[in-house]
Amino acid sequence: MDEPVLLTGAGGAVGEAILSGLGDEYEWKLMFHSPPMEEPGHEYLVGDVSDDEDVAAAVEGVGAVVHLAGDPRKTAPWKSVLQNNIDGTQKMYEAAVEEDVDRFVYASSNHAVGAYESDERTPEMYRSDDDFLLDGTEQFRPGNLYGVSKATGEILGRYYHDEHDVTVCNVRIGNLNEGHPPIDYERGQAMWLSYRDCAHLHQRALEADYEFETVYGISDNDRKYYSLQRAKEALGYEPRDNSAEWDGEERVVEQC
Amino acid sequence: MDEPVLLTGAGGAVGEAILSGLGDEYEWKLMFHSPPMEEPGHEYLVGDVSDDEDVAAAVEGVGAVVHLAGDPRKTAPWKSVLQNNIDGTQKMYEAAVEEDVDRFVYASSNHAVGAYESDERTPEMYRSDDDFLLDGTEQFRPGNLYGVSKATGEILGRYYHDEHDVTVCNVRIGNLNEGHPPIDYERGQAMWLSYRDCAHLHQRALEADYEFETVYGISDNDRKYYSLQRAKEALGYEPRDNSAEWDGEERVVEQC
Repeated sequence: MDEPVLLTGAGGAVGEAILSGLGDEYEWKLMFHSPPMEEPGHEYLVGDVSDDEDVAAAVEGVGAVVHLAGDPRKTAPWKSVLQNNIDGTQKMYEAAVEEDVDRFVYASSNHAVGAYESDERTPEMYRSDDDFLLDGTEQFRPGNLYGVSKATGEILGRYYHDEHDVTVCNVRIGNLNEGHPPIDYERGQAMWLSYRDCAHLHQRALEADYEFETVYGISDNDRKYYSLQRAKEALGYEPRDNSAEWDGEERVVEQC
Repeated sequence: MDEPVLLTGAGGAVGEAILSGLGDEYEWKLMFHSPPMEEPGHEYLVGDVSDDEDVAAAVEGVGAVVHLAGDPRKTAPWKSVLQNNIDGTQKMYEAAVEEDVDRFVYASSNHAVGAYESDERTPEMYRSDDDFLLDGTEQFRPGNLYGVSKATGEILGRYYHDEHDVTVCNVRIGNLNEGHPPIDYERGQAMWLSYRDCAHLHQRALEADYEFETVYGISDNDRKYYSLQRAKEALGYEPRDNSAEWDGEERVVEQC
């Protein structure tokens, strides 16, 4: 990629995973909500996604956007997700179109479809012998207002793709955890996303040849109720991690 | 229905169609955005759906909500649909849950899926010999930001149904036109909804036994690319009008 890539929400965990794997792959322009604790090794700015001027300054001169910024709390109140996640994402898309950005990778969430985990269906769906699988063609079923906001962000991407020709990938990120899968937490193990798989998936979303995709962002866990088929076929995602290879913080299966 | 039914957006065309057909069927409580020109024959209030106190006053004492209020312009700017359609609908649902309202009928729009009408697909899809059909299980594809806001309203309904047990019907209203179908406008004829079919459909949405439905609100037009199957099966909708029976403003086919 010739032009810089804007990474919003650069101070969060997903941003950390992406930069730890792809820091040298692109010319990054980082957007932080609060001033970073350490001086970043890349161009950066501090700003708010619900402020038009900050957003315009952020997209200026970039060729692609990885949009992670927003209120990440699954218990976030409506007022916050309305402003930071819904309005902030629309502002970012609108500014990206103005700037002729032609690729937008959007950090959606498993919470956009969280209500498929009904009382009847769990915890079986978290186990490796259960064949329940969501593949990205299902309808939205958010289990909280944060999930409603993420679903809306995906639909904004559909609109900006259809009407403004932006290449868009919605990544429904699972349970990002550094080093090892979540411990003693079946749901988290089913949707674990390792740092290196997270970085690789975002590299594929930035480089693969596609038009509009919605994919699940998890590692290749034996336990999973999210299909990786679209991520593999459309993006060329090749995950390397699997929560089944771990016992707590110890990897117990040798990797080839 | 024993308790009053709240009708928001009572001053608009859909409200007019519903009240003209069902004025005597329920004890209505009407919410207007601006003071009505004539004194309504029902209890009413004037208020704003983005004002918490107005919304609380509106739902007080009602057993069901027909939520039509919002900016109805397909070219409405983002700021307006964010406030009036997205935030306004969430406020209305939240207040309805507080009030133990158990049924919520939401006026969605064909614009939630307007981008299926791509250059390649139109105008053939507006003709009676074309078999392209949307049935409500397809993914959202809004062609404008108004459509994004309507899609978000539908998802809010999914959330409030799944998490708060409200019975919800999303009605994707087509082209409501009084007296006769739109003239010289293929698209409008394919999605015509007559006033009496509109009233009847909303009566079914208020009375039928279902949990969560998304249906298309059109008459039984020969030309159509929206399926009426769910409306008929789940709600018992029995449309009486068909744009093919009309030549301009004249009905040319005798009705049985």
